[in-house]
Amino acid sequence: MSNYNPQPEHKFTFGLWTVGNIGRDPFGNPTRQPLSPEYIVYKLAQLGAYGVNLHDNDLIPIDATKAERDKILRNFKKALRDSGLVVPMATTNLFADPVFKDGAFTNANAKIRAYAIQKTMHAMDLGAELGAKIYVFWGGREGAEVDAGMNTLDALAYYREALNFLAEYSEAQGYGYKFALEPKPNEPRGDIYLPVVGAALGFIATLDKPHLFGLNPEFAHETMAGLNFVHAVAQAIDAGKLFHIDLNDQKMGRFDQDLRFGAENLKAAFFLVKLLEDSGYQGPRHFDAHALRTEDEAGVWEFARGCMRTYLILKEKARQFNQDKEIQALIKAYKVQDAELSKLTRKFSKRNAEALKARKFNRGMLAERGPGLERLDQLTVELLMGVR
Amino acid sequence: MSNYNPQPEHKFTFGLWTVGNIGRDPFGNPTRQPLSPEYIVYKLAQLGAYGVNLHDNDLIPIDATKAERDKILRNFKKALRDSGLVVPMATTNLFADPVFKDGAFTNANAKIRAYAIQKTMHAMDLGAELGAKIYVFWGGREGAEVDAGMNTLDALAYYREALNFLAEYSEAQGYGYKFALEPKPNEPRGDIYLPVVGAALGFIATLDKPHLFGLNPEFAHETMAGLNFVHAVAQAIDAGKLFHIDLNDQKMGRFDQDLRFGAENLKAAFFLVKLLEDSGYQGPRHFDAHALRTEDEAGVWEFARGCMRTYLILKEKARQFNQDKEIQALIKAYKVQDAELSKLTRKFSKRNAEALKARKFNRGMLAERGPGLERLDQLTVELLMGVR
Amino acid sequence: MSNYNPQPEHKFTFGLWTVGNIGRDPFGNPTRQPLSPEYIVYKLAQLGAYGVNLHDNDLIPIDATKAERDKILRNFKKALRDSGLVVPMATTNLFADPVFKDGAFTNANAKIRAYAIQKTMHAMDLGAELGAKIYVFWGGREGAEVDAGMNTLDALAYYREALNFLAEYSEAQGYGYKFALEPKPNEPRGDIYLPVVGAALGFIATLDKPHLFGLNPEFAHETMAGLNFVHAVAQAIDAGKLFHIDLNDQKMGRFDQDLRFGAENLKAAFFLVKLLEDSGYQGPRHFDAHALRTEDEAGVWEFARGCMRTYLILKEKARQFNQDKEIQALIKAYKVQDAELSKLTRKFSKRNAEALKARKFNRGMLAERGPGLERLDQLTVELLMGVR
Amino acid sequence: MSNYNPQPEHKFTFGLWTVGNIGRDPFGNPTRQPLSPEYIVYKLAQLGAYGVNLHDNDLIPIDATKAERDKILRNFKKALRDSGLVVPMATTNLFADPVFKDGAFTNANAKIRAYAIQKTMHAMDLGAELGAKIYVFWGGREGAEVDAGMNTLDALAYYREALNFLAEYSEAQGYGYKFALEPKPNEPRGDIYLPVVGAALGFIATLDKPHLFGLNPEFAHETMAGLNFVHAVAQAIDAGKLFHIDLNDQKMGRFDQDLRFGAENLKAAFFLVKLLEDSGYQGPRHFDAHALRTEDEAGVWEFARGCMRTYLILKEKARQFNQDKEIQALIKAYKVQDAELSKLTRKFSKRNAEALKARKFNRGMLAERGPGLERLDQLTVELLMGVR
Repeated sequence: MSNYNPQPEHKFTFGLWTVGNIGRDPFGNPTRQPLSPEYIVYKLAQLGAYGVNLHDNDLIPIDATKAERDKILRNFKKALRDSGLVVPMATTNLFADPVFKDGAFTNANAKIRAYAIQKTMHAMDLGAELGAKIYVFWGGREGAEVDAGMNTLDALAYYREALNFLAEYSEAQGYGYKFALEPKPNEPRGDIYLPVVGAALGFIATLDKPHLFGLNPEFAHETMAGLNFVHAVAQAIDAGKLFHIDLNDQKMGRFDQDLRFGAENLKAAFFLVKLLEDSGYQGPRHFDAHALRTEDEAGVWEFARGCMRTYLILKEKARQFNQDKEIQALIKAYKVQDAELSKLTRKFSKRNAEALKARKFNRGMLAERGPGLERLDQLTVELLMGVR
Repeated sequence: MSNYNPQPEHKFTFGLWTVGNIGRDPFGNPTRQPLSPEYIVYKLAQLGAYGVNLHDNDLIPIDATKAERDKILRNFKKALRDSGLVVPMATTNLFADPVFKDGAFTNANAKIRAYAIQKTMHAMDLGAELGAKIYVFWGGREGAEVDAGMNTLDALAYYREALNFLAEYSEAQGYGYKFALEPKPNEPRGDIYLPVVGAALGFIATLDKPHLFGLNPEFAHETMAGLNFVHAVAQAIDAGKLFHIDLNDQKMGRFDQDLRFGAENLKAAFFLVKLLEDSGYQGPRHFDAHALRTEDEAGVWEFARGCMRTYLILKEKARQFNQDKEIQALIKAYKVQDAELSKLTRKFSKRNAEALKARKFNRGMLAERGPGLERLDQLTVELLMGVR
Repeated sequence: MSNYNPQPEHKFTFGLWTVGNIGRDPFGNPTRQPLSPEYIVYKLAQLGAYGVNLHDNDLIPIDATKAERDKILRNFKKALRDSGLVVPMATTNLFADPVFKDGAFTNANAKIRAYAIQKTMHAMDLGAELGAKIYVFWGGREGAEVDAGMNTLDALAYYREALNFLAEYSEAQGYGYKFALEPKPNEPRGDIYLPVVGAALGFIATLDKPHLFGLNPEFAHETMAGLNFVHAVAQAIDAGKLFHIDLNDQKMGRFDQDLRFGAENLKAAFFLVKLLEDSGYQGPRHFDAHALRTEDEAGVWEFARGCMRTYLILKEKARQFNQDKEIQALIKAYKVQDAELSKLTRKFSKRNAEALKARKFNRGMLAERGPGLERLDQLTVELLMGVR
Repeated sequence: MSNYNPQPEHKFTFGLWTVGNIGRDPFGNPTRQPLSPEYIVYKLAQLGAYGVNLHDNDLIPIDATKAERDKILRNFKKALRDSGLVVPMATTNLFADPVFKDGAFTNANAKIRAYAIQKTMHAMDLGAELGAKIYVFWGGREGAEVDAGMNTLDALAYYREALNFLAEYSEAQGYGYKFALEPKPNEPRGDIYLPVVGAALGFIATLDKPHLFGLNPEFAHETMAGLNFVHAVAQAIDAGKLFHIDLNDQKMGRFDQDLRFGAENLKAAFFLVKLLEDSGYQGPRHFDAHALRTEDEAGVWEFARGCMRTYLILKEKARQFNQDKEIQALIKAYKVQDAELSKLTRKFSKRNAEALKARKFNRGMLAERGPGLERLDQLTVELLMGVR
């Protein structure tokens, strides 16, 4: 019987910006004080986390001098050493400063595009110094409300140019980064380029070094567009492209809520954990979420604890699902095998094609059989509610 | 001054199932009589269309004998010859028959998967016989409501197996097909695999012969998920993968409406036409829509005329947009060039990287400048409303 | 320890059209055989249901003669007697026949409007004969895709005229019906009039006899629009207008799925059951849903069983929630009382207003306190998963 | 031929917070400098606006002393006098300060509820002093993410208590306010109480003095939930409850965009303007929107000009629609009259009911007729595009 206590081996990570979120929203001022990066590191370690992630400016203010940078970095590294936390992932803030108001890598202004690349090189230097091996690109400002200005074909070309450049930079510096694109359909832009997991997968295929690029899918982002996140992550895994993952929650068809993992879509959260665990995913389980704006600091740590506990509870339920005899029997019955036919379709040959074409099928009989999905789904729900 | 009369050179096409739609919906019985394929062909030719598309069973009933098939085909070919219409695209009905209730290529039953491939081979034979060079895959039943049954990783593997097999079949037969995947997020399944344009692009990269596969994006499908269709089509063009296109209309976040082109999102329709025309897209402009269920046959032909007229009106407006001096000046001002910086970022070299890193940017000044998008958008709206 | 076995006292009801659904959808033919009304009645009784609901044409075909009607009715009543099932609710099918393709009560054609009222009078006669005391109006065809035709103000006037007329008819006949409006945002129409619970509540206030009218809110319908169903039902209860309820499930922002209760939004289902039970709702718990189209008849009964079991499981969890000391302590702490201030604001008087205006509030201190919602929500989720 | 120049008689108004928006969003810092209220007043007057609206704290900082308040007010009144602008509407900021993080009138803390009422009394005093006759309640923080805490029934009771109290206050002070509720489905809360126009209409019916309360519907808010805004406004007009209106634009199913009027849904904007003009609505046309965050101050005024111009263009198109002979003939044909039947259904009597019940209808023939909606809609679209 598990006690659902998080340990570093579970690879739970949080961004500095997540537990550090000060509770500002489009209609309201901050409700919480900023927490120092070091304080966050110690607290996360106490709670059983494995690591902490950051944007350059979560740690180093955008206008910091070299001396300020060095001092901040020294303190932060000390906190990491003392606490045992690692920094598996780093990224660039290309969205907060007004200079990026109309995009960074895809800005219509060549100077701003260049500046965005420069800023990212510096941020990659920082991440490397902290030991990060995964570098995330969230293009939150790469998008438009007005399609009369930017030609989307140009935007995609600029985007590709920047990613190609930065991949070479990583190799030239010997940083060994894997790059993880994080798609989002909208907000803060009316429509963001590469809006969902699939779009990023498609784009990667057009890059110079596709093997360096993969995905950082986010539960809330795919859910905003009403898509099935489990299917999206499966497609990333199928393509060998699940480099990182952002766990949180969200109602469909509304603003980016970044809710506590499992707070809204319990069943989808369950199948996601099951997919990650069954498929042998080895990367961090990153909670890219924040406490509700209503909460004080105590609520922030409840939020963090809750994310991890819910993951562990669902992991235990996934194990139970895999061992439930009735459920497994239903799944086995659901998957009707036919060794002979499968051999024919596995790989094309003229002979296989001819044999398949000549085959008689009893369409009516095949149609009649019920696959038993209502029962299987009900058992899943009951397992999820702890009454099995 | 255009009179917006459609001509074959405009490459407008309709599916047999579109103008032939009998007005059944989940809550109501048919409101229109079926129209024969030949009748549809003659009518479309009269209206100025270029071609007609079909699923195998739009023309040949699923249970037709060889003799019946031959007779139907003879009559249909005669209608094509007489009317001058072509069949640029064909596809398979893998969704209407109960046998496909839980999927075709991704069905959990190996026999049904094999049958779906067999049915598609026959449908490809039919399409080839009619001269089609584009073959569409709309996987409307490839999806799930219950994720406890089918493992998505298996589903994607089955899907890939089928597509690889069929691509080889096309080559072996010398059909010369280009295959166009048509994504849709949901309906009739709760969640359909490869739900949006990007997902299909990503999947193509995992196929054995990716060069044979491209996209058939549909306005309504991408719009159901609240995504920007113009951006999606641009990504397909950017990847060299726009093989076909389905034009219609739709409100976001609801059931598949298949409205008359331009009926709902005029501005998006305008930018889409502009993108297709400016980018030199040469394929068919296929209207995958149907008259409202309220309409009688007269309404069906009004619907068909309206689709084509609106396209031509928007094409004329796109031309006007490209020649509007004030608009073009705003766009030019929007795109700030910097030859020196662009040279640095175009291609990575250590030297370029160093030069870029050393460069000083005046972030404040770059941030201050307004890109003039409100004015540009307002002028676009006014042009669209015909008051410029 | 409950065994979650449904009994008539739980007041579970199903419509003939729900378990009788034959699995047709916009893209596919039926997958199941029709079941006779009597068979459904016996099966539902076996499963522990309390009642069965119906549209006129679920039982009596639209073209039945008087003699056919009488015979059908005789058989059906016998089945009710034998099984012990009751018919608490009846309604009219004003959507399936092509005559209603552009609306029933709000049709632009005065003849069709009159026919819809006539058909409803007959259906009310039928319902009364079967003992129904709740009469539902689902205006599925009352809506539009084209706002150029029907003036919405006219449509609302027609709607009101029909409802006023039929309420008088019920009183004149001594039927004693309570009328329950069932809102839906869209599908089968592009936009349906009175799209959500609130709209129906607002409309009722404009009727001649508002006390006869209330709501039949449906989980899936409100959820399609992304609204919080629990809030909507609470508003109906607050207004004394919860006359009936339709339980099912649905993902947001997509076609009408009518999933098994609890299949998708477990947490919302929990709070709904809790609201119904805590507020003393005495009406039927009607499952307006159907088995997945993939299922055979066995799957249909699994579906029906699952709906009822999940309700009972959630009812037990609501009881547990109300007795959980830690949870209840958190809720108590959340609700900060202030007897003196509450007295001032309860009812306006000049004196209260002056006293309140003169009061000093420490805004900063009030803002600082965290309400503990993250913890409370996490405990709820854990209770829901059965790990408390 | 109109030149689309706004004049005060068109009754265009803007909120101080709209053109004064500084371009902050959840992911980015402000991009524009604050503008002083006086400056805004002079600029709006120059552009042809009629009035300016405000929240208390748009003008008077929340912590201002009495002396500061007086001085600010003096300057602002002078600007109004000099410019000729009026203040038709006022409202309270009950959302920005952290004290309201978990609601104002519906906060779980009795002290905060009382403070919210106090703050509103002060803001009503301010509005009255500026001549406002419409008082808006936008309950942006009245909602929840966690339904375990606040019982929605309690929340509605608190809400009602506050509104009843404040209505009495207005009468006691002789302010003569009409109160306009402004619904919104979500953001900043996960789910806001009274989420859409209908919900507010329903709630008004439960207040002590319903005649004092009406609606301030907002285009973007209803559209976020995917509802038809024209239908919602028509319902408010039908109920005699359209007290004010907020014009802007928005894509469905995403964050609150507050786009320039007509920027997105041109057809809906057209039918809205037509409804307002045809129905004789006399209130302000308030643009509750803001320039894109990308824009500088010049863009802000382009945005304001664009809102008004688009309204006037659409007003001219509505006039043209009403005079278009072909369109009007189609509408006339669409509305099939039947004087005899209409007389029967207009008002219930036993005799009318009997006569109607005895009437024979030819269902098939009634069903057959096409209403001509595709053609009517196409002509509307062509009129909208200026090619008629």
